[in-house]
Amino acid sequence: MLEDHVTPRRVVILGGGFAGLFAARALRRAPVAVTVVDRCAHHLFQPLLYQCASGILSEGQIAQPLRAVLRRHHNVRCLLAEATEVDVPGRLVHAVRPDGGTIALPYDDLIVAAGVRQSYFGHDEFAEHAPGMKTLADALDIRRRLYRAFEMAESATDPQERQEWLTFALVGGGPTGVELAGQIREIAGHTLDREFHAIDAAGARVLLFEGSDAVLAAFGPTLARRAAGTLRSLGVEVQLGTIVTGVDERGLTVRDHDGRTTRIDARTVLWTAGVEAPPLAGALARATGAQQDRAGRILVEPDLTIAGHPEIRVVGDLMSLDKLPGLAEVAMQSGAYAGRMIRHAVEGRTKQPKPFKYLDLGSAAYISRGRAVVKVGKLNVSGVTGWLAWLFIHIGFLTGFRSRFGALLSWLIVFASGARRERAFTSGGRNAPAGPGSGPPPPASTPPVH
Amino acid sequence: MLEDHVTPRRVVILGGGFAGLFAARALRRAPVAVTVVDRCAHHLFQPLLYQCASGILSEGQIAQPLRAVLRRHHNVRCLLAEATEVDVPGRLVHAVRPDGGTIALPYDDLIVAAGVRQSYFGHDEFAEHAPGMKTLADALDIRRRLYRAFEMAESATDPQERQEWLTFALVGGGPTGVELAGQIREIAGHTLDREFHAIDAAGARVLLFEGSDAVLAAFGPTLARRAAGTLRSLGVEVQLGTIVTGVDERGLTVRDHDGRTTRIDARTVLWTAGVEAPPLAGALARATGAQQDRAGRILVEPDLTIAGHPEIRVVGDLMSLDKLPGLAEVAMQSGAYAGRMIRHAVEGRTKQPKPFKYLDLGSAAYISRGRAVVKVGKLNVSGVTGWLAWLFIHIGFLTGFRSRFGALLSWLIVFASGARRERAFTSGGRNAPAGPGSGPPPPASTPPVH
Repeated sequence: MLEDHVTPRRVVILGGGFAGLFAARALRRAPVAVTVVDRCAHHLFQPLLYQCASGILSEGQIAQPLRAVLRRHHNVRCLLAEATEVDVPGRLVHAVRPDGGTIALPYDDLIVAAGVRQSYFGHDEFAEHAPGMKTLADALDIRRRLYRAFEMAESATDPQERQEWLTFALVGGGPTGVELAGQIREIAGHTLDREFHAIDAAGARVLLFEGSDAVLAAFGPTLARRAAGTLRSLGVEVQLGTIVTGVDERGLTVRDHDGRTTRIDARTVLWTAGVEAPPLAGALARATGAQQDRAGRILVEPDLTIAGHPEIRVVGDLMSLDKLPGLAEVAMQSGAYAGRMIRHAVEGRTKQPKPFKYLDLGSAAYISRGRAVVKVGKLNVSGVTGWLAWLFIHIGFLTGFRSRFGALLSWLIVFASGARRERAFTSGGRNAPAGPGSGPPPPASTPPVH
Repeated sequence: MLEDHVTPRRVVILGGGFAGLFAARALRRAPVAVTVVDRCAHHLFQPLLYQCASGILSEGQIAQPLRAVLRRHHNVRCLLAEATEVDVPGRLVHAVRPDGGTIALPYDDLIVAAGVRQSYFGHDEFAEHAPGMKTLADALDIRRRLYRAFEMAESATDPQERQEWLTFALVGGGPTGVELAGQIREIAGHTLDREFHAIDAAGARVLLFEGSDAVLAAFGPTLARRAAGTLRSLGVEVQLGTIVTGVDERGLTVRDHDGRTTRIDARTVLWTAGVEAPPLAGALARATGAQQDRAGRILVEPDLTIAGHPEIRVVGDLMSLDKLPGLAEVAMQSGAYAGRMIRHAVEGRTKQPKPFKYLDLGSAAYISRGRAVVKVGKLNVSGVTGWLAWLFIHIGFLTGFRSRFGALLSWLIVFASGARRERAFTSGGRNAPAGPGSGPPPPASTPPVH
């Protein structure tokens, strides 16, 4: 043990999401030197990302500096860099800093918690017109697109164009798609309904396309049916068994069960339909001989290590094990398990470790004010009861008191009045993407609108 | 009056800052049709922009949707577009929408409240490495640069590079420069002091360069002296009588009173040294024959109209009159005056209007926790008293209860613990701005004053 203190075992954790964070926390009292590497400086509370996108919560309410969260973990060091390659024989991670410089990090144990990203199933050209929602930057981009669409509708002079700006298409009927659909209808009907002159914001169309036969299929048929009913009662046009075959600047093309193709004019298309592993997973698989599943996730042993590499563990969304879903709860538990296993090894425990077992604490999806679906074991809860359960769960899990209090206040306001405190978006600033004047040269003036 | 209601007089207001907002408010009960055109959808509380940049306040706490602020003004319409030209004989404003489309807005009265932007005094190549702080996008860019600099220092392996990341240079000793200097020292010493392993965050160097012989010169010699003393006691290296002659990615070159040239290695350089009128001012001057001052601001008559054009008024920072300073208070009063004049004219008042007279209610600059300088007439207040006055003034002026309450809470937290709730920045996201150099620098319009 004394020697361990002199040259502590080096644990490198790739990713500061739920999985990486819980791994680091599990190592708090272990005599190891932990390095958490993430390409973002913050830990993101991803389940509430849609509330940042929809203007309820600020960035700071869902994203806290990783090093602030881990401040009291004196054996943890945080580094802002993107891991690009693993030198498995040399036990070295290569990472790129934001300025392009590279660093090499030696490890004794490696925990890969790099997560997944949006997948377009081979149609990466859709991404430009149909952004996904995985990062804070994505959420701010979606916030910009949502609120700007109403602004564009207000200033449009052509009725067709106006209608296109007031049509929002969502691809994917999982929790994120359902939550966003509910949010957009609420924004239209409760937040913006009395702020415009030329348009009827409350009449905005929201279409939700899902390839399978149910939204929120993971919640089981009962809740899936209730969720679809709630969405329809909110005015969301739910289209099941529908596959998206094309996306462009002005809308999308879908094909239904019967092979019928339909064109939908919508200036805002958001994509939440699938995920895939980042390039790091491929690099790791090549270096270790690990198998990848269809989405590129890495198959792990029951103890979350890569076969033949007891020093490398894969946790969270990037781990492929027993078809476990990509939920925050799975990430937390698998990350904590990996950290615990290393602690036990350092402490010299010789007992064969128990395999990782996911304890299903239930899942929840928010649909609109006062309505959510929650599944805990065989218990299905929806409506107001579901919403209260949702509130309780999320208040409990929000990291840190300050975020929790601020979020409660923001929720109180939006539930009571529909007002959203975080609607500001950048568009005309020097550093903003494609604001006025930065695009192509303007065409000839249209006739006066007044 | 009846006819007025059938075809109400059309008032177009260019800009939704303090001047434009107060003009629209002054017209609330007038039988006119008001259109406020701004390239941002929000009204920005610019005096607190530095607190957004430094991670105390969120975007929503300092920027509220213009149309939400004006929701109860039923004769006001808001449009998201950037005015580019004024057809003076045709009484038509041409504006560009975010997608590049153009609109033309006819007016009977025009209020130009388009503000000013950062000036680099003919050295627009500095902009890439030394961003200014005028917009919400600027503030988020500065927030990213500030917090990323500490991250880069932490991961740097070369001691020289590490020191460069821990050196912050501010150009310009006006309120914004002073406020930012205080903020960076506070971030280093109170917010980040216990979060890093490889660096001593509290030891970060902050240099403030000012061309004249005083910081906060507009506050008079007594307060200027006290402000410089406070800054020095905070550890800010105040360098007066120093002109910046070059800026690049790695630092800047300065020349002092005696002509000595010094190179300073600093990876973060921020520019708050001057302002200039946007291109619209030039277009308006050419179309009306109006004079522009050295910074491109438009010279107005005592009633804020352009000579020979009683239908066009210029207000706020863009107005050049009696050397009035570019303060929020001047913008509010001039905007309100212009709106009132139009209301009087519509109401048929024939009395010759009184010229605009600015009532100096005082000015305030925040330096650090518990320290601010406030000048009201001949009264000079600094230290804790000044800070309490600052708090009182800013709480009073923050638009809307929600922002006020949230800001109070954020201030309470940062004053008590140094913790900043809004430190999240985007950097690795797919949609994040490309970072340094993503936008074209503004064109030059004034000769260097340095």
